[in-house]
Parts: sequence; C-alpha cells; structure tokens
Amino acid sequence: MHAEIIAVGTEILLGQIVDTNTRLVGQVLADLGIDVYYQTVVGDNEVRMRAAIDLAAKRSDLVILTGGLGPTKDDLTKQVVAAYLGKQLVEDEAAMLKIKRHFEISQRKMTANNRLQALYIEGSKPLANETGLAVGDFYQAEQGPDFMLLPGPPSELRPMLFKVALPLLKQAYRQDQILSSRVLRFFGIGESQLASQLDDLIENQTNPTIAPYAKDNEVTLRLTASAKNEQEAQALLDGLESKIAKRCGQYLYGYGDDNSLAQVVMTKLREKHLTITAAESLTGGQLQAALTSIPGASQAFMGGFVTYANYAKEKLLAIPAEVIDKHGSVSEQTAILMAEQAKQKLGADVGVSLTGVAGPDSLEGQPVGTVWIGIAYRNKDGYAQKFHFPRQRKYVQARAVLTALDLVRKELLSEN
Amino acid sequence: MHAEIIAVGTEILLGQIVDTNTRLVGQVLADLGIDVYYQTVVGDNEVRMRAAIDLAAKRSDLVILTGGLGPTKDDLTKQVVAAYLGKQLVEDEAAMLKIKRHFEISQRKMTANNRLQALYIEGSKPLANETGLAVGDFYQAEQGPDFMLLPGPPSELRPMLFKVALPLLKQAYRQDQILSSRVLRFFGIGESQLASQLDDLIENQTNPTIAPYAKDNEVTLRLTASAKNEQEAQALLDGLESKIAKRCGQYLYGYGDDNSLAQVVMTKLREKHLTITAAESLTGGQLQAALTSIPGASQAFMGGFVTYANYAKEKLLAIPAEVIDKHGSVSEQTAILMAEQAKQKLGADVGVSLTGVAGPDSLEGQPVGTVWIGIAYRNKDGYAQKFHFPRQRKYVQARAVLTALDLVRKELLSEN
Repeated sequence: MHAEIIAVGTEILLGQIVDTNTRLVGQVLADLGIDVYYQTVVGDNEVRMRAAIDLAAKRSDLVILTGGLGPTKDDLTKQVVAAYLGKQLVEDEAAMLKIKRHFEISQRKMTANNRLQALYIEGSKPLANETGLAVGDFYQAEQGPDFMLLPGPPSELRPMLFKVALPLLKQAYRQDQILSSRVLRFFGIGESQLASQLDDLIENQTNPTIAPYAKDNEVTLRLTASAKNEQEAQALLDGLESKIAKRCGQYLYGYGDDNSLAQVVMTKLREKHLTITAAESLTGGQLQAALTSIPGASQAFMGGFVTYANYAKEKLLAIPAEVIDKHGSVSEQTAILMAEQAKQKLGADVGVSLTGVAGPDSLEGQPVGTVWIGIAYRNKDGYAQKFHFPRQRKYVQARAVLTALDLVRKELLSEN
Repeated sequence: MHAEIIAVGTEILLGQIVDTNTRLVGQVLADLGIDVYYQTVVGDNEVRMRAAIDLAAKRSDLVILTGGLGPTKDDLTKQVVAAYLGKQLVEDEAAMLKIKRHFEISQRKMTANNRLQALYIEGSKPLANETGLAVGDFYQAEQGPDFMLLPGPPSELRPMLFKVALPLLKQAYRQDQILSSRVLRFFGIGESQLASQLDDLIENQTNPTIAPYAKDNEVTLRLTASAKNEQEAQALLDGLESKIAKRCGQYLYGYGDDNSLAQVVMTKLREKHLTITAAESLTGGQLQAALTSIPGASQAFMGGFVTYANYAKEKLLAIPAEVIDKHGSVSEQTAILMAEQAKQKLGADVGVSLTGVAGPDSLEGQPVGTVWIGIAYRNKDGYAQKFHFPRQRKYVQARAVLTALDLVRKELLSEN
C-alpha cells in the first residue's frame, strides 16, 4: 500500500514558512509501515491542486492533504477533493455549534465564510479539531484511493493527527501488525564508510529496514521491524544489530534518538561514582557545556577551566611558562599537564584537556585542525593523543569535543 | 517563467528530517520573481525520481533538485538527471583534488564511491561546494528546461545557494534587475510578536519583500529589494528598515546571515580593546564556547571559569561559603561575586556570571528557569539581574547565554 502527502499553501511555495506537517505525517505513516513515495506542495490554486490530486490518485492508495481547510477565499482543499470525488459537502453539527460558540464568546461577528470550516465530504468521517475550528476528513472509497484531509496550522494538525487520525489509520490499514524501531548511534566513522561496510545489508533490506542518517559529526542507523508482536520484532532487530555490530561495533557508542556521547559518558561516570573535569583551550568551554547539557550533570561534574590564552593556562592551571615556550601550547606536554592539573585542582577522577588550532589562522607553525587531547584517568599516567581535523573552525571544535568524549568513554569501558 | 523544486531523499519521505532546503530555495526564487507552482519530495529511487523529473520537465522551465549528490549507493540524483538529458558525467578536477586531499589529511582511506562527488553533467557548470565535497550543477538547455542540482546537507546547500547559485540564476534569468537583500537580527522578541507589530508591512509587502525566520531564540527578517541598480535597491531597503526600526528597534542587534550576538559582542570588544571573562554555573561553559566560536577570539578573551558546583565556586573563584550558605548559589550576591572575582582573577575588563536553575529539578527552593546574570563592567559597580525562562533545560541554558551577551552588548553601546 502506498500513501502520498500533498501540502497545500502558496506561503510554502514562496518559502515564507517551513512545512513541518508533511514531516510529521510522514513519520506516522512510516511507523505504520505505509510507504510514501511522493510528497507534493501545491499552492492555493484550484487548477493546480486538482492536477496534483489527479496525479496522486493514479499512483497511490491513500492521499493525505494538509492545509486549506480554513475560512478564507484561499482555502479550497475540501471543495476540490469533493469535486474530484463527485460528492457534496455537508455540515458537521457539532463543529458548527463550536464555531458559533467561539464567535459568541469572543464577541465577534461570525462571517458567512466561517461555515465552511464545519463542512465535510458526504460519506466520509469528519475529524474533530481539538485546538481549532476546521474539521478534518477521512474518506474511505470503495474504489480508488482513500483521502484524508488535515488542517494546516501545526497546532491543529498535531493533536488531530495523533489523537484522531492515527487510530483511524491503524484500524483501516494495520490491524494485524506491530512496528518497532531501534536507533544505533556511531561515532568515528563517516556515513559513506559505514554505508560501504554495510553495503549488502542496506542493499537487501526488507524487514527490518535500515535508514542511515548523518548529522553533527555522527551517524545513526534506524532499524525498523514489522512483526506480529513486540517479541518477534525485538528478535528481528537483535538479529540485524548483531550483524552490524560484528562489522562496525567499535564505532557503536549508544542507542536511541535522544542520546549523545556526552550522555553516554555522564551515565557511565555516574554508575561508577566518578567525577570529571576539563581544561579547554581551542574548544573554549564546549566540552563542559556538552556535559552540563545533560540533566543531573552535578553528580559527576563540579566545574573546570577555559584556558584559551597561554596567560590563562599559566594563571589558572599553573602550567610553567617554560613548558609552553619549549614545546608550544599545542603539544603533547602541554596537553598532558593541562589534564593533570585540572584533575588535581578540582580533585576529580578524570581530567580532560583540549589544545589545538581551531583556525582560521595556523598557530605556532602548526596547521589548522591540529588537536592534542590529554587524558588524566584516575591513577593511570596522563597521556595525550594527536588528531587532525582539517576543516572549518566550528567543525574542528565540535569534532575535538566528541573525540575527547569518545576517549573518555573508552577509558570508562576498558576498566570493566 | 516557472520553476519547480524537487527534494530527493527517502529520509524526508519517512519523516526522519524536516526538509528546510526547499523553503530556502523557494525564498530565493520568490525574491528573483520566478514563480514556483509545485514542490515535490521523492525518495532515493531511480524509477520514481525519473518520473518526478519527467513530470517537472513537462510543466516547468527550471527544475532545481536538492540532495542525492553524496557518495553512497542512495545518491542517484546526478546519474538520473544525466540519463534524462542523455549526457555523460565528467570529472571536476578541482573537486577531485579536494576530495583526495580531504582523505589524505584525515588519514582515512578514500573509497571508490567518493569519486562520484566530483562528477558533473557534461556541458553544465559545476558549482563549487565550499563546506562539503559534492559539487553542484547548473545545466542550461538549448531546448527544454534548465536543471540545477544542489547538495542535501543544509550546511552545504546554504553557502552554495547564496554564493554560487544565486549569482548564476540572476545572470541567467534576471539580467535586467538587481536584487539586494538585507538581514536584520532581533533578540528578545518572539516571531509572532514581531510579526504582529509589523502586521501591515508584512501583509502589504511587494518590493522590498519581508521574510521572517525564527531560530534558536532569535528572529531574523530578510528584506529583499528588486531595482535597476544597487543604489536604488539600498534606498528601498533603508526606507523599509527605518519603518521597522521605529517599531522594534530596541530588539534589533545586528545584520547579516553569518552573525550572532556573540559576534557582535566580540567585534565591539575588539574595537574598544577590552577583554572579557566569565564564570558559568548553570550554562557550564556555553557562554565561553559562544565567544570562542568566533575567529580571532583571542584578542578579547583569555579564558574563564566553569563553576557548576558550589565547591568549584569556592575553590576556583574564592566565593565565601558563608555567602552561598546565606543567600544561596542562585542569588544576586553570588552572581555579583562570581562576575567580580572572575574579572579580577584574569585581569579582564568585563566579567560575566551566570547562575540559575536549568532543571529538570528545582534548586534551593527556586523554580526551574530562574537565572541570575552578574555583570562586572570596567570600573562600574558589579550588579546582577534576575530572569525567568520557564522552559526545558536546553532552552533555559541557551536563553541565559544570549541574554547575558545582550546585557554586555548594551553596556558596550551605552558607553559611547
């Protein structure tokens, strides 16, 4: 079964607003296991809307339209769909009552065009609008595609979609199935590298499906299984995950949509009752900001240092000027001392340091993207690793922070 | 002349990401006076992408595709458009060199599929990708519609669109006209509030056009004037800006796409040869990270303190335990001392402090969202202001940082 989404609104074509509705409807359909092959945006124009509907009806079993249900002259969706189906529009009494009461309460005169919002296509099911006045519509055809009409304002669409439309869609198309998703998160491997390592799995995916997604220096894979029950779905997901882990397990750091390297590190630190601190030069506080973005950060993080200039490294961390003069501020020696001194000054279990060349200019003869990360872990000897991230300033900084978190994560894991 | 936008990506159909590219391209075309009648999203599927291109080519003079230029098996856009046109793909030497260098420097193996990113359609103009590896494409046909191919990641699309594609589109279709844009940036006012204050201006816009855009706690307005020459365009923009400034000038902090409150503050500090430092509790380093995200930060920022726990406030800033015991860590007194101590310890001209309740739990009986910002500005007496941002943790932190920057900006301006 294939569905198609048509967003109606000239303001979307003109780029005046971002259409977030289509994305939300797309998510709901994906989770229901209903394929979407096309999404279209069309303006508030009868001829072109009709053309879009004609086309969608030819190639899809379900057409979901968003927008154009309001009271203004521009709002044509119901009328155009009714004309396509050869049906009349009829009045939803409850909706009409709500509209009348709305105008009474707000002491404004109800103009005639407002009646339009209470109309629905005869033979369809009107969908109640909890947060607005325009009713939606679900038309199940005996022949040809079904139609669903949803309002344009996201504040109206969202509750109607989840509370009214989703149960109807499940009932109509998916009584027999459970859908379950699992998100795997990877760091240290690019999207293309991951994709090429999983080439055959991605190529031959059926159930579960695999959807890679790259963002902010990391890659996620969303695995989605369809099955008769949750247990079966989980078994399918486990099977696929273990295949993936066999090939790229060293980059797999966590699970879930709302997760991050900082979250994983903080969770592990709290489990082990350890505290962390940092001394940041090129990243200027970003690592500590990432740690404190996690709720409950205070259990594992008390504070730390931003030592951007050498003066601050000397003043706040007592790094001897001679070390910096001799080896440079971007050096193994300085990185190790920064991590050790930060750890010692705050009595933390783990000290992390970052020093490097964020750019745009090179520093001490070292190219943009050079980064030293120092780690002082419990009673181990401090050490530092050199990296090179030859990109723009923001990328260098963000990548350095994630790499430091990944080093800490590996230390935390290696102990068990 | 009509254009059509096709966004390519199964992840969009599945609702995994919101497609913001189409909106941006739509804005650019609207500013160029090029009508867009349809926007389509299609998955990474050769047959359906070809169907979408066939349809678009029939009804439009210019087809702009976004996405699908990357190195994976899913990335098919170039190949499908080339096949539609009956053209070969050829290699862009400069792009190929850039890809090779990228893999050399990052010491990763370049897999064969990466070569795809350097290919463009023969007879077209390859579009340089400033922030990524995949080249874009502009194909001007003798017969039939023109094609433009742009990358999917917004961080790559945006610079290519504005710096490379827009000039080419202007030259190809709008030689008679000058288009000039000006972006106004606002902080401290919401999008709907700004829109309602400018209601009539937005409603009746023709030339210049006004496009509001809300993001990350701030709102921007992009004004675009079309005129015979730059001087005329600037005069139109000046006229509209002064109308807007009359109503909402107190929230207008700067201009331009690549700008931020941190950038404005850093520029002003450097102009005045002043240095800044910070002591951050609830924001855990975010303010300092914002300052050091600006190239050349070292001229005005040497370092600072992350004092998340009270222990760190006492240890790093010598805030007396009695002050915290008596007034609380989230208090005017603590905020002032933090700002003053940070300033003094690093010998800076400006000290900023942030202490508050980021949530999810309340602290010292104060509700989530309570924030004290302390300012120690040159030889003025230190002071602190209380704010309340009752939202989620990440919002509270981000809003606190911007509010602190705005306070510093006002201090810097008030001196002149």
